[in-house]
Parts: sequence; structure tokens; C-alpha cells
Amino acid sequence: MEFTILNKNVSTNARTGIIETSRGRIETPVFMPVGTQGTVKALSPDDLTDAGAQIILSNTYHLYLRPGHETVEKLGGLHSFMNWSRPVLTDSGGYQVYSLARLRKITEEGVTFQSHIDGSRHFIGPKESMAIQKALGSDIVMAFDECAPYPSDYEYVQNSVRLTSKWAEVCLDQDLGKDQNLFGIVQGGMYTDLRERSARDLVEMDFPGYALGGLSVGEGSRTREKIIGETVEFLPENKPRYLMGVGKPEDILEAVILGVDMFDCVMPTRNARNGTLFTDSGRVVIKNSAHKDDSDPVDENCGCYTCRNFSRAYLRHLFMANELLAYRLNSIHNIFYYIHFMDRIKNAIKENKLLEFKQEFYKLRS
Amino acid sequence: MEFTILNKNVSTNARTGIIETSRGRIETPVFMPVGTQGTVKALSPDDLTDAGAQIILSNTYHLYLRPGHETVEKLGGLHSFMNWSRPVLTDSGGYQVYSLARLRKITEEGVTFQSHIDGSRHFIGPKESMAIQKALGSDIVMAFDECAPYPSDYEYVQNSVRLTSKWAEVCLDQDLGKDQNLFGIVQGGMYTDLRERSARDLVEMDFPGYALGGLSVGEGSRTREKIIGETVEFLPENKPRYLMGVGKPEDILEAVILGVDMFDCVMPTRNARNGTLFTDSGRVVIKNSAHKDDSDPVDENCGCYTCRNFSRAYLRHLFMANELLAYRLNSIHNIFYYIHFMDRIKNAIKENKLLEFKQEFYKLRS
Repeated sequence: MEFTILNKNVSTNARTGIIETSRGRIETPVFMPVGTQGTVKALSPDDLTDAGAQIILSNTYHLYLRPGHETVEKLGGLHSFMNWSRPVLTDSGGYQVYSLARLRKITEEGVTFQSHIDGSRHFIGPKESMAIQKALGSDIVMAFDECAPYPSDYEYVQNSVRLTSKWAEVCLDQDLGKDQNLFGIVQGGMYTDLRERSARDLVEMDFPGYALGGLSVGEGSRTREKIIGETVEFLPENKPRYLMGVGKPEDILEAVILGVDMFDCVMPTRNARNGTLFTDSGRVVIKNSAHKDDSDPVDENCGCYTCRNFSRAYLRHLFMANELLAYRLNSIHNIFYYIHFMDRIKNAIKENKLLEFKQEFYKLRS
Repeated sequence: MEFTILNKNVSTNARTGIIETSRGRIETPVFMPVGTQGTVKALSPDDLTDAGAQIILSNTYHLYLRPGHETVEKLGGLHSFMNWSRPVLTDSGGYQVYSLARLRKITEEGVTFQSHIDGSRHFIGPKESMAIQKALGSDIVMAFDECAPYPSDYEYVQNSVRLTSKWAEVCLDQDLGKDQNLFGIVQGGMYTDLRERSARDLVEMDFPGYALGGLSVGEGSRTREKIIGETVEFLPENKPRYLMGVGKPEDILEAVILGVDMFDCVMPTRNARNGTLFTDSGRVVIKNSAHKDDSDPVDENCGCYTCRNFSRAYLRHLFMANELLAYRLNSIHNIFYYIHFMDRIKNAIKENKLLEFKQEFYKLRS
């Protein structure tokens, strides 16, 4: 994997770049649709390609539990399994074990937990996470980390940073596929000195990319932006920076300005299933009766399959009638919105007009 | 609308033909996917076109209640509303009022009922049904009939035939769009003489096509085939014959042999959502653990999008994980199976090999 910075914005920390992987190049800043269980909810691989997705995310925790990583490996790996030929990033399972699994118990070696599906007992530590992600065959593999809940006291987070660094070393020692690239995850909660400690530990280990974990867990956006800004300073400029699980378009824009390159979030697909659609002038709640007879598309400037072919009135009807097509058409629109939002950010950086773009973006929504 | 018979099978009553409508030609025998609420569940118009659908069915009762036929009309009619340019047949609402609505009361003028959605009170008679279907703009409009439940005694069915004939005349007197074609519906339950009475009444009114209603309501397949065979005898040869709501592939094959041209059924899409997939060698229950590691497609001879791109193992995973993509991929396969089953029947008729086809069909499944 190689990362090349193409453009830097003069007045901010934003940059554009290219990540070269064996499964193709990724232009950054990039949004990665989330395919938790080996499918981006309601969308086919073709829908994703049509929307311009360059890379998707999937989850170690979920695929380990169901269908099992051995099954995925037997079927040729995750790309072959889900028929997706572009890059895949897999999360390490760390965050999901803490947020979804039951009765988890953390030791120096990893985490014992009960499956949220059937209550069965499991253990995942850094070694197990690497073995699972090797079997899945993802292009970008995430280190197994300890993600502190929010809020957490200093001592808890201090220990979580210690464990995360210890486990990162174990992850580095494991055998991965030759085209797999392991990213480290910076923890440290909302404590600047612990973020610094975590970042310095990981940078010393020299990963091809670094993630900011433990954010978007309940803290406010100001706190988050402060932590992002500080953490980025501790990371090398020539490596991609990935902000995990964030977020709203405005959150992404602010993070790009702070120097972040990669994003993932369930928001576009989850909101789509709730009937909330993204546009530059704000969110459209499709079930509102205002759309009952509206022959306009969700966004007349949008080039997605949904906006090119269907009216707000039809989307409202599908949603009110609980029709399955609603979920797909809404998801196509929201994923397209996010991906093209990143394209516009990229162009604004190239043209050195990111702050004008930001101003215009907030103006349209007010 | 014009109907031209192209081939007749020598040893059976089967025939192939072309129905010419203002929205394109329909090759018969034809299977019409069911789009009850203005969408074939889980499928987009493109999915239907890709699967080879020539015409789809939609429902007066459902669209009248939600979103309302005035809304559909305001948005340019059903084709424009759902973005489907090929022909649409709309059911009259007769059958749905009896099977879905609550507290229905039948009078000489029509049916008073309560909506299954919100309990609101409504009245639909032949005039109302024609007005609704005119607003929807369907290419084939069905007469408003009285569909006797099964079993019903002779007197009940006798009255149902009388009402159906009376209402058919009222339907004929209503004003429809110039490219809309009204089909009569033969009732008569399982009583041959009442079927004859109903058919003779309707044939005298000279409809461009005739449907066999009141079947697939709980009677056995032998009884059904007997009634189909008898009823077809009372219908003119040069008009299309439509068997409503039938059925399994074998039921369709038997009905084609008896001289039926058009079919609709929710079975392919409903079964798809239940994880049951059609193949020539029988139904595949995708959740069976036998498919856990199976890299083969559902049917290696099938050319559908699902079989060309995804394994049984992946489809099983999607289904077990309640992923929305499961419903779409399964529905694409089943609709493709039905439509291509009709193509194979058509070819067998053309080659005068329908009985060989039938023999082979049953052999593969045993």
C-alpha cells in the first residue's frame, strides 16, 4: 500500500491523496460505506459501484459470529463471498465487542464475551482478531484496541491506552496476507496527554496508516474537534488518517479541515431506512405529508439512480406502505450524497477553496 | 388492443400469441409479477426489465386506499408514478375487498367495507372501480366482480354470478381512457353450469379478454383444472384468457395446456422473502445448513443476476442475518425463474413439444 498526498489546502490542514492498494486506488478524503455483515444494508455491489464507492468497511466481530470467518475463507474471502472487487477495510472487533456483546471481561490477553445473537461464549484478543481478518482477506486490517466508554476517568483511559499499545505490538507480530495493511488505532479518550501517548506509541511501531478511535461515543462536536486537531498533530503527515465512525456531513467536513483522510459511518444507510434523506439544504423526512403529491425528486441537483427516476411522492408512498424498495432507493440516495459530498470536498481542496465551500455549505442549510 | 394467436399445440389446447397494447407487445403465455402497492416487492423497475417482465399487475384496492388514486393520477398515472413504461394490468378491487377488508357489506350497487389499514369506511362498486382504474391509467382494466368464498353453496354462487354479470355491464358503460382495455371476469365457483352461465353472459358483452376468477381459493388442483378446462370451452378462442392468482409452476403449466394465456401470482416474490427459491429440480430452502459452505449458485443453469453473481452460501448468510439484500436477490431469482419458465413453455408450444416438456418437467422434480 502506498499513500501519496496530491494537494494541500493552504489555509487548513486538509489534503487530497491516493491510497494505492492491490485492489485499486482510493482517492482521499474518502467515505467508506459500512457493510457490517458483509453487505451494505439494502444495497448490492452494483449499487455501490454505481454510487461511486471506492472502498467499503466490514466487521470482524459480526462476520466471526456469523457466518464465521472460516466459512468466508472457504468461499474465497470476503471479496469473493460478497462479490465486491474493490478494497475492503475490516474493523478489528474491538469496538463491537464493547458496544454489542454481553458480559464482556477484559484481561491482558483480550476480551471474553457473549454473542449478541445467541449468547454463546467467545474470546477475541489481538491474535484472534488478526487471524480472523487474515481469513476475511480485507485490504486494510485494523489493530485490536480497547475502546474506553464515554465518559471514563483518567485511570481507566490510561489503562486502555496501555492495553491498546500492547495489543498493537501483538497485532504487528501476527502473520497477515501479503497485500493486507495493518492500521493502528489511537485511543486516549478526551485526554490530550493520553492521546499523545497513544499516538507516539503507535507511530513508533510504524503502521502504514493510523485511525482515531474512541470518538463519536457521546462527546460533543467541539470536544471531538479539539481532540481530532490535537491527535492529528502527533501523527506523521505522510500516512493516511482515519476517523472511525464519524459522522454527519458537517462533522466530516470539519475533520477533513483538521487533516483527516478516511471516514466511515452507518448514518447514511441507517437514516435511509428511517426515511431521512440528505440534501445540501438539510435533511428531507420523506414521510412528511408535504411530499404526498410532490413530483420532484429528493434533490433535483442529485444524479443518483433514485433522484433520476423517482419522485418524492413515490418514495413517500413506498415508505408509508413499508415497501422494501423504499430502503434500497433511500440508501442509494444517501450513499451517493455522502460519496459525492467527498468528491466536492476533494475538488474544493484542489482548487484551494475549501473554506469557501464550507461557508457555502453552512449557508445553504441555514 | 389486439390479440393474435401465433401457434397452437396439436395435442393440447395450449397456444402462443401476441397482445398488442399501446405500451408494447406481450408475448403469451405470460406471467405477470404482482406489484400490489405500485411496486413488485423488493424489486425496482430495472430489476423487472432485466428479468424479462413484459407486464406487471397492480391493485385497485390497495392504491385506492394508499396513496389514493387521485394522488397517482396527479403524478401522471401509475406508470409515471412507479417509473414503469411497459403495460400494467390492474385488478378491480373485487377480490381484495373480500379477502382483506373488514366488515364488508355487499349490496346490488357494490361493497361497503372498512380499510385493513386504518378501519376507515369506504364503498366500491363497478362505477367506482372503473373511475379508480381510469385514474391509475392501467393498460388492462379488470371488471368489478363478486368473488364467492370457497366453499359456497349453489344459491350464494348463483347470486354472485348474477351480480358479476350485472356489474360487468355497468363497468362497460363507464368511460375509460382510449388505450385502456376492460376484461370481464368469469365467476361461478366450482359449479360447471354457473361457470357456463357467467361465461355466456360476459361473452355476449364482447370483452377484449376474459379472466377466470374465483379459483385458487382453497379448492384442490384437480377441481381447479376441471373448472378451467370447462370454462375455457365457453370462451372465444380469439381472445386472451387470464387465470387470476395461479400459481405454482406446475399449476401454470397445466393451465397453459388447458388453453390459458395469462397468469399472475404472489408466490415467486412471497416465497423469495421466505427464503424459498424455485429451480427445475424443486424448491431450495436457502436457510438449510446444507448451503452453509456451498459456493454454487442457486441454479447453475439460471442466467439471473443473483445466480450469475452470488453463491448459495452468501444468500444463506444474508437470509440468516435478516439482511435486506436477501429479499431482493431472492426475488430477482424467483421472478426470473417464472418468466423464463413461461419462455420455455412458449418455445415448447412453438416446437409442438409441450407434452414432452411437461414429462421432462415432472421427471426432474421427482
